[in-house]
Amino acid sequence: MCRFLIYKGRDPILLAHLLTRPEHSIINQSYDSRLRIDTRRPMNGDGFGVGYYTPDTDPELGDGPCVFCATTPAWNNLNLARLAEKTKSSMVFAHVRASTAGVLSETNCHPFTFHSLMFMHNGQVANFQRMKRKFASHMKDEYFLYVQGGTDSEWAFALFLDCLDKLGVDPSKPVDVNGFGHEIIRKAMLRTIQLIKEWAKQCPEDDIDNEEPSLLNFAVTDGHSVIVTRYITSRTEEAASLHFSTGSKFIEYEPGQYKMERRDRRQDVILVASEPLTFERSDWVTVPTNSILTINNQTVLLHPIMDEYYQIDPSVPRSSNFAASRGLVSPIVEPQAYTNVNLPPLEREGRRRLSMTA
Amino acid sequence: MCRFLIYKGRDPILLAHLLTRPEHSIINQSYDSRLRIDTRRPMNGDGFGVGYYTPDTDPELGDGPCVFCATTPAWNNLNLARLAEKTKSSMVFAHVRASTAGVLSETNCHPFTFHSLMFMHNGQVANFQRMKRKFASHMKDEYFLYVQGGTDSEWAFALFLDCLDKLGVDPSKPVDVNGFGHEIIRKAMLRTIQLIKEWAKQCPEDDIDNEEPSLLNFAVTDGHSVIVTRYITSRTEEAASLHFSTGSKFIEYEPGQYKMERRDRRQDVILVASEPLTFERSDWVTVPTNSILTINNQTVLLHPIMDEYYQIDPSVPRSSNFAASRGLVSPIVEPQAYTNVNLPPLEREGRRRLSMTA
Amino acid sequence: MCRFLIYKGRDPILLAHLLTRPEHSIINQSYDSRLRIDTRRPMNGDGFGVGYYTPDTDPELGDGPCVFCATTPAWNNLNLARLAEKTKSSMVFAHVRASTAGVLSETNCHPFTFHSLMFMHNGQVANFQRMKRKFASHMKDEYFLYVQGGTDSEWAFALFLDCLDKLGVDPSKPVDVNGFGHEIIRKAMLRTIQLIKEWAKQCPEDDIDNEEPSLLNFAVTDGHSVIVTRYITSRTEEAASLHFSTGSKFIEYEPGQYKMERRDRRQDVILVASEPLTFERSDWVTVPTNSILTINNQTVLLHPIMDEYYQIDPSVPRSSNFAASRGLVSPIVEPQAYTNVNLPPLEREGRRRLSMTA
Amino acid sequence: MCRFLIYKGRDPILLAHLLTRPEHSIINQSYDSRLRIDTRRPMNGDGFGVGYYTPDTDPELGDGPCVFCATTPAWNNLNLARLAEKTKSSMVFAHVRASTAGVLSETNCHPFTFHSLMFMHNGQVANFQRMKRKFASHMKDEYFLYVQGGTDSEWAFALFLDCLDKLGVDPSKPVDVNGFGHEIIRKAMLRTIQLIKEWAKQCPEDDIDNEEPSLLNFAVTDGHSVIVTRYITSRTEEAASLHFSTGSKFIEYEPGQYKMERRDRRQDVILVASEPLTFERSDWVTVPTNSILTINNQTVLLHPIMDEYYQIDPSVPRSSNFAASRGLVSPIVEPQAYTNVNLPPLEREGRRRLSMTA
Repeated sequence: MCRFLIYKGRDPILLAHLLTRPEHSIINQSYDSRLRIDTRRPMNGDGFGVGYYTPDTDPELGDGPCVFCATTPAWNNLNLARLAEKTKSSMVFAHVRASTAGVLSETNCHPFTFHSLMFMHNGQVANFQRMKRKFASHMKDEYFLYVQGGTDSEWAFALFLDCLDKLGVDPSKPVDVNGFGHEIIRKAMLRTIQLIKEWAKQCPEDDIDNEEPSLLNFAVTDGHSVIVTRYITSRTEEAASLHFSTGSKFIEYEPGQYKMERRDRRQDVILVASEPLTFERSDWVTVPTNSILTINNQTVLLHPIMDEYYQIDPSVPRSSNFAASRGLVSPIVEPQAYTNVNLPPLEREGRRRLSMTA
Repeated sequence: MCRFLIYKGRDPILLAHLLTRPEHSIINQSYDSRLRIDTRRPMNGDGFGVGYYTPDTDPELGDGPCVFCATTPAWNNLNLARLAEKTKSSMVFAHVRASTAGVLSETNCHPFTFHSLMFMHNGQVANFQRMKRKFASHMKDEYFLYVQGGTDSEWAFALFLDCLDKLGVDPSKPVDVNGFGHEIIRKAMLRTIQLIKEWAKQCPEDDIDNEEPSLLNFAVTDGHSVIVTRYITSRTEEAASLHFSTGSKFIEYEPGQYKMERRDRRQDVILVASEPLTFERSDWVTVPTNSILTINNQTVLLHPIMDEYYQIDPSVPRSSNFAASRGLVSPIVEPQAYTNVNLPPLEREGRRRLSMTA
Repeated sequence: MCRFLIYKGRDPILLAHLLTRPEHSIINQSYDSRLRIDTRRPMNGDGFGVGYYTPDTDPELGDGPCVFCATTPAWNNLNLARLAEKTKSSMVFAHVRASTAGVLSETNCHPFTFHSLMFMHNGQVANFQRMKRKFASHMKDEYFLYVQGGTDSEWAFALFLDCLDKLGVDPSKPVDVNGFGHEIIRKAMLRTIQLIKEWAKQCPEDDIDNEEPSLLNFAVTDGHSVIVTRYITSRTEEAASLHFSTGSKFIEYEPGQYKMERRDRRQDVILVASEPLTFERSDWVTVPTNSILTINNQTVLLHPIMDEYYQIDPSVPRSSNFAASRGLVSPIVEPQAYTNVNLPPLEREGRRRLSMTA
Repeated sequence: MCRFLIYKGRDPILLAHLLTRPEHSIINQSYDSRLRIDTRRPMNGDGFGVGYYTPDTDPELGDGPCVFCATTPAWNNLNLARLAEKTKSSMVFAHVRASTAGVLSETNCHPFTFHSLMFMHNGQVANFQRMKRKFASHMKDEYFLYVQGGTDSEWAFALFLDCLDKLGVDPSKPVDVNGFGHEIIRKAMLRTIQLIKEWAKQCPEDDIDNEEPSLLNFAVTDGHSVIVTRYITSRTEEAASLHFSTGSKFIEYEPGQYKMERRDRRQDVILVASEPLTFERSDWVTVPTNSILTINNQTVLLHPIMDEYYQIDPSVPRSSNFAASRGLVSPIVEPQAYTNVNLPPLEREGRRRLSMTA
């Protein structure tokens, strides 16, 4: 079970407002099981990563993102608590992780980066072990050699880089003020999914798990555009959950309680998350299964991914059983669901303490 | 929220049978939230420690315990998974921990050791910060200087050592074949609790948290006798849960499923645990609140701690609200409570994988 | 053996220019033994910390420093390599450490912080174990309780805070644009040294190590002024080495090679370091033993500490044997001393690689 | 720069006698630079691993080795210090590592294991990045998928497993009391080297580093026989150093000082090491470059590897420049070379302290 979070803002935000202060941040989602809906799954205690871009205005800082990751639980990482209080960025990726494939190690931590690009994954490539050779033999040497760890996610990113390359974009070259462009990134992302689907179908038929679908919620950015998928290789199951929220400001109206302020129609702040970050139902829009979300110039676009797993008829329901069994379902919830939770001071103090130490 | 586990056997047991293989081991209690009863609390993802004694028969191994501890979550620690499959002992302490006081660091990991002695704590000394100077000034230099970290638990152990010393036993001296003797250890333990109680009462009256009770489930051993308390400084609240089980063998009747075998009245195997390790109700006896358990020569003794917090009338119920708010209540449960839990293969594989790697 | 480094600039500097890029940075001093002068000592592989202040101009970032520390060797820390390439500050403390007292743990990492203040130590308080109670009983509760770890250095910082408090300054209060003022900080620092000296003299006479001097190179800042001591409790031995350099710019004239540029008399850049950061002899001035250095408004002041360990006659030489035996002597060296060092590409690549990954 | 050590004894030895107590153990080689001959190289501060077999007599312990590894420096690892004092084995592999290829992570720690087999490497496969695809495409799926990390060494082990498999031995099957047999293991090892040589020759000619030789000191065991190579793909350069010592007992004649006792001709104790573990010249025999050492039934056999890099004429000297540039040369040294080293008490205490804590 993983969770990810994306922030894209007109203005930089203090990372603490995304990561450590909100009662329902992805860090606290992993920390505080009282706030969890799905309690049948292990928590994301296995590691985390946060990547952010520094302002364009200072060329000395370079154009790639800065990534901080750790294999210790996010909720207890003093360095994260301190950095989050002292760092601002207008483009942030964050990921918490329970290792299901790949040994726990810093090389397996999301987000992965390659020059200006940053990538993360929520879900899993089904039967990855049987497809690993196809990944390896398909891609160019530079991306084959890029892979350092053992996860399906890192290989998926290498494949994405290879797809981008084969579309005529050298992913190692510096980006200009517009980045690589959202169309080409989206195209490479769709091609990545296409190839994984094809290879899955070429797996030996007698394989017992062959029917298990792949959960492919991917996110990628070049520091300018952001492309996120909510995707599953199934016509009947839901993908891992994905929501977004837009507004003029993301504000803390009381300690630990955040909401999206919408003064006008402007989308100065865009959040995309596996799990809603606030308890305001109206703050969040659910991304439909098997679609691709684009953030370009502070605007959100949604496109369906119309392939063999697409359901044209919206009245045909998908089951959330499979994604739920992976701990990947996080619906938007009403605040009242939490009304009766009597919060003892223990973890609150624990969290406070971390912040204070910072 | 912490959990601890004690094994005392006539024969050595493979640590894996206690730590990694049982579906409801303390490691898996922390790993697999589907098996958790109290889901409102963070999991024990903050660190763990295991201490065990090597056989008396090899003098080169010395008489103190060996301790292995880590600040990464127990469920993902390869070294632990490997060592557990390759190490046997007839006296084992194990502890998983969510840090509520003291920064996460190896110096704060239980069990703590001092020459032949090993100690762990489940609970917390209320208002410890205000009592810390009393701890420091009361004890002899060697125990004051022994403290390396910042936890109430380590200070409580140092206090225990000082109490033992003042009762005429030098805790740094090698033990003979009978150890220090269970009477003197029990006496030192009761004195430790007595002092903490007294100091708590001397805390400034105007302190708002002053009414909060201390949860003092302590366990100590010299490698021969074991003394464990289940104690709370309250007449109306339950202490953190504590159970024990005795039998002729602790057996795995199917993969991951364990039970206590009782062929005759022999107590070849004694387990003491915060949370039952098997799903057989009849395997476990609950230690009453405010009593002290002794293991001597494979026999379990129970004594009440008859002080101002003792309830003579057993019909007067205690509330478990406070201990529950700390995540420290783990009742004995019926196996059928788990019947409907449909286990998806994910973590099972994860766990298997760790074991296989070993 | 430890090393520390201080940067105070009119403009912010990229941390990489101090920490990871210079061939003779404190990170590379610890990494590359070919550049070491004293090869008889273990390297600083035990941990490191870097603390920096964010710009005053953004009140949301608060006035305290941000600290990043780790217990793994600095030369192999990917997070450090990445953060150093993406972070700028005009006030930086950095410390690498070989643990000689206190178990290796993040709580024992320098620099230590308290609200706006940041502190580090290069050296050791002799016979600290015997003085620990004096530290504990002398200081106010808030500083006694501040100590989390087991090092003489953290206790020395707590004592400094207590001294500042007793001089009428509350170290927990926010600082204004001028900070607490360099006079009062210097006074508190001198008082700290005074107390340690006094307590050392009260140690039992029969103590065999009693004659061993304390090495007290301390550095403290409130984000505005910086106070650094080079001090030893001896009339005949040198203190741990300390040097400073001032100029208009700290520039990389070829990859990995830095020097201090001095266009005019301005001191836009001030560096203070245990070990020279460049190979230009003329870049560095050695701070005399038993003196105190002040940085105030980009100006360096030097004052002697005139007590019983002061040598009025500058012609009386001190021996560097003791400090050298602790690995704490790093003279200013001529570039030609390195001419014959034939650098094989191995570590260079290693270092490059880390930088590239960033 | 890495170091490895092998112990094969008729009787089990306390790991501390190999790892932590000898003044010149591989741990202390990495810790104490005063004892280093080559001071131009970084120390082995990047991680370590130790693997050992448990006695055959207890089937519950299985037949594979137990491995403990860490990415923190060996000299500061409390768990290692404690385990070494409490664990005995008659077959031990130990490895300290400076990461030159592959990010520092536990998945990159030697020794690597596969069921009953254990493997480690001292040196590096030259131009490995360019040969990685050949490794991947040559081997069977189970060994391709076995690789978790990013090192040439782990790939070399996977290749060895594939060679063993193609020689008709399934490396995943349990071994009987004689293991797989030393002939077949030696054959697989020679085949591994053969393939690496061939692939190196197929690298593109225009490659600037193509002339750099591979340093292939490999060690492998099935818990019964041990095969170790000292090999370089060059006719003119020395391989990384390798020595062995045999005797009736490995004894500590004064604290920290060890020697090999030779009462009769029996080889009850066999040590193989990159760097001599004692200061007695007569204790050690240097393995000639490009030969393969076999331990079978407490007997050491040496065979030359007679291929294109073999020098028939022993009077033709090899240069040790290349291996030295990698920090891989450790000659046998006379004890008097250390006579003048005036050991200050600092690290000695540090080391003692670790031991005491255990």
